[in-house]
Amino acid sequence: MNDQTKTGVIRRLQSVEGHVRGIQRMVEEDKYCIDIIKQIDAVQAALTKTQEIILDNHLHTCVTTAIRDDEPARREAVIGEILEVFAITNAR
Amino acid sequence: MNDQTKTGVIRRLQSVEGHVRGIQRMVEEDKYCIDIIKQIDAVQAALTKTQEIILDNHLHTCVTTAIRDDEPARREAVIGEILEVFAITNAR
Amino acid sequence: MNDQTKTGVIRRLQSVEGHVRGIQRMVEEDKYCIDIIKQIDAVQAALTKTQEIILDNHLHTCVTTAIRDDEPARREAVIGEILEVFAITNAR
Amino acid sequence: MNDQTKTGVIRRLQSVEGHVRGIQRMVEEDKYCIDIIKQIDAVQAALTKTQEIILDNHLHTCVTTAIRDDEPARREAVIGEILEVFAITNAR
Repeated sequence: MNDQTKTGVIRRLQSVEGHVRGIQRMVEEDKYCIDIIKQIDAVQAALTKTQEIILDNHLHTCVTTAIRDDEPARREAVIGEILEVFAITNAR
Repeated sequence: MNDQTKTGVIRRLQSVEGHVRGIQRMVEEDKYCIDIIKQIDAVQAALTKTQEIILDNHLHTCVTTAIRDDEPARREAVIGEILEVFAITNAR
Repeated sequence: MNDQTKTGVIRRLQSVEGHVRGIQRMVEEDKYCIDIIKQIDAVQAALTKTQEIILDNHLHTCVTTAIRDDEPARREAVIGEILEVFAITNAR
Repeated sequence: MNDQTKTGVIRRLQSVEGHVRGIQRMVEEDKYCIDIIKQIDAVQAALTKTQEIILDNHLHTCVTTAIRDDEPARREAVIGEILEVFAITNAR
């Protein structure tokens, strides 16, 4: 990742970390279950957005390089990985 | 899509269509709600698998051609579409 | 399900069936892969909405009856099923 | 939540927090994008499991009490919340 993407991704993950600590406090303070479930959902949405930023960077760098490469095996590898990401993120 | 992929995708969609008709009968015959919900889930899994096959074909054809193209705008377009697919399928 | 819910659910499933047939035509007519993937996503969203309507009905009927029952095993059964629905629909 | 559930949920959230910190290190150390995306997916699966445990507790406590209550408005409220949880977690 270039430095800007890296900084952005780390900042998002730090924010997720703080959010998860906040949810621990909600549990300790006996907050309403449904509100806790909703906060966990918000964390998951933030993580999906982070995955999207990393995938964006990946497509512009590794995938572009590999697909422009003359070696078919390299292209197959990156395409296989994108399909795997699609499969695992949609199987959740 | 090449003919083989096309045939495979259409066959999967026909199977989904039959499955959905079967679920209509389950509703008419007052089958247990939870069983109906599970059958709908199975249809959704079959549709996700179909999307994956179409995406696989797309990456091997349009995306590969566009990324190997000398025109940066064409590359950007296909990359943007993959990210959009990731975003919409994970926002559901 | 009461008659009104049943009619509504069947109508939604018939609409899904028509949508899936339309997507088959898109494949036959070589429509753009990304557009086909998006249409499949719309079908999945319609199916999730249908599951929600069935779950709504189920909570108001079977689940309410079972939880008001004096038999703990009946309550456990319906609660277990709701958790199973949560698990399978979120594991996709 | 009873004490046992509370301890279990907090422990899971602490584990998620550690996992997210580990992913930050992966980003700093320029680990492969696809591996980072997969680790984020594992965190999301752990969060879904945590939601499931909280929902289980909620159904056995608040929901059971409310549905056994003579006040229809209380029942409607908890049923509406379960449907909302279903909708938001499946719209992601």
